[in-house]
Amino acid sequence: MHSINTEEMAEYITLNHGSGGRLTGELVREIFASRFGMNEPFTDSAIFNVAGGDIAFTTDSYVIDPIFFPGGDIGKLAVCGTVNDLAVAGAVPLYLSSSFIIEEGFPVEDLIKISESMAKEAEKAGVRIIAGDTKVVEKGKCDRIFITTTGAGIIREGCSHIGSAAGVKPGDRLIINGPVGNHSIAIMGARKQLSFTTQVLSDCASLVQLISKVLVSGVEVHFMRDLTRGGLATVLNELSEMTGMGIEVDENKIPVDEPVRGLCEMMGFDPLYLANEGKVLIVVPENGCSKIMAALRSDPLGEKAEIIGEITGKKNKMVVAKTVTGGTRVLDMHSGTQLPRIC
Amino acid sequence: MHSINTEEMAEYITLNHGSGGRLTGELVREIFASRFGMNEPFTDSAIFNVAGGDIAFTTDSYVIDPIFFPGGDIGKLAVCGTVNDLAVAGAVPLYLSSSFIIEEGFPVEDLIKISESMAKEAEKAGVRIIAGDTKVVEKGKCDRIFITTTGAGIIREGCSHIGSAAGVKPGDRLIINGPVGNHSIAIMGARKQLSFTTQVLSDCASLVQLISKVLVSGVEVHFMRDLTRGGLATVLNELSEMTGMGIEVDENKIPVDEPVRGLCEMMGFDPLYLANEGKVLIVVPENGCSKIMAALRSDPLGEKAEIIGEITGKKNKMVVAKTVTGGTRVLDMHSGTQLPRIC
Repeated sequence: MHSINTEEMAEYITLNHGSGGRLTGELVREIFASRFGMNEPFTDSAIFNVAGGDIAFTTDSYVIDPIFFPGGDIGKLAVCGTVNDLAVAGAVPLYLSSSFIIEEGFPVEDLIKISESMAKEAEKAGVRIIAGDTKVVEKGKCDRIFITTTGAGIIREGCSHIGSAAGVKPGDRLIINGPVGNHSIAIMGARKQLSFTTQVLSDCASLVQLISKVLVSGVEVHFMRDLTRGGLATVLNELSEMTGMGIEVDENKIPVDEPVRGLCEMMGFDPLYLANEGKVLIVVPENGCSKIMAALRSDPLGEKAEIIGEITGKKNKMVVAKTVTGGTRVLDMHSGTQLPRIC
Repeated sequence: MHSINTEEMAEYITLNHGSGGRLTGELVREIFASRFGMNEPFTDSAIFNVAGGDIAFTTDSYVIDPIFFPGGDIGKLAVCGTVNDLAVAGAVPLYLSSSFIIEEGFPVEDLIKISESMAKEAEKAGVRIIAGDTKVVEKGKCDRIFITTTGAGIIREGCSHIGSAAGVKPGDRLIINGPVGNHSIAIMGARKQLSFTTQVLSDCASLVQLISKVLVSGVEVHFMRDLTRGGLATVLNELSEMTGMGIEVDENKIPVDEPVRGLCEMMGFDPLYLANEGKVLIVVPENGCSKIMAALRSDPLGEKAEIIGEITGKKNKMVVAKTVTGGTRVLDMHSGTQLPRIC
């Protein structure tokens, strides 16, 4: 095995780092493999063994701008986003692949920071990053760095219906684990270099431990989905579409942190449509609510959990919110983008 | 289910197609899911069932320039490259995910062509594309389209050593399934708009059927690797590094098509370092060569297969080529890139 330390590495990524030759090998060995705990030889495919069963499989590309933001960075996001997708499907996340597209000239120091974030989050979530790829494109042909992570996990027994909402029934309650909108507002603030009186941090976090507590609570969970691009309102619309049932939420119950609410009012954003990276919607039978709330509130990521509404069973596939002023409004599927490159 | 046909879709991809909202749903439904045979509901994770065993898992990002080239396009490449990585690991490829990063303004017509290529190659290779993601970045923030595919397959019984070269022994023979360098030269030609007397096509192809014939031939295969970035010489160096053994190849035996050889001589390229997308190195015991050659030559992708050298067992980890003129030269690991964005 070579032993080249990072001091000897270039300060900036060059096209040669993507050539598949000696420099690619050095990059993989020195930056990624050492942090991700990958063993040589590096082969075309990683191999893992499973005892059999249902495997959840999910992929996401992360193109967030800026790549470092209050509360996280693109590496943390790339791991959390993908393990969260597995967790909400009722799976125990086990393995990740990560593929990097890097712009020529990208600072090696930043790549190291990003890799360290990934390694840290992977460890927290109990997953191993076992396969990867690195491509380098010419200056100006991508925006610094894009990361695609793909995850595999084993679906927990009795949980294969959770992602597809097959078990949702009229009267089921909707619960979220905390305030919405923080990720979007943190990114917007970082991008526009806004200064807030109270800093808004992205809620980017791995929900694996929290969801595990929910799934071992003894309550039958009928649906889960993380509230990413498009926010809570989009997930509610998708749920209504999937089940063919109406949904009612109470805006008074949906937690929104003060600085987020303030900025939304000022800039005309609706927090229900803003992206989150550490929030999950959980649908459970009414009689399971107290156990689920207790499970959520026992976790730092669920302290501000709230029951926000219910499945009405009306066959109108409509999502209706009781507003703060006592009226109602329809939460439609949005057709535009409030903020591009939010994840 | 909505039924919106492509006539109603925008002609160009907009940022809203990446918003996670209504237009993302339309894009996924109308362009990807319909061609990939994905069923609604589209959930965060796809689920597949396995009986248990060793799973091969591999990922690659494709950033090739140009995206349409003689012999293929980025979609064909993204499927073939990943299924080939699984096949050379001794796996039966089963499932793929595909994640798209698309530049605002990208023609929908081109996205359809690319999706059709992907669907066609997936069918040929016997894999299903079951999970995906779409991100759209602003004009100028990526170069048209990047695709990341991740694949999973079941390792065939008795084949888990193939990717790691654990079974390679001195005296083993090296076989390749046909001429090298065509992919690189085709891409270079397309990029520089060179005109050749005889057109050079990329060899981009799924090797799944070919490799299947090799693996059911009854011969114990000790190693396989596809000859992509860095070409044959790089794979030979990696094999020498992995096994700690020397390798000798005979340049006279390594097939190179005439137009490729001509262009290499003119431009000073070494075909042994050029990328391929439909070539595989197979290492087998000497007494298995005739069966393997018969299996290869029975397939259209193996008609020009040749035995090109052997494992010497010298402990010098050196790759030596007998040259056309009767001398020898060392094939070292290259440290530069002959052509960026070749895959």
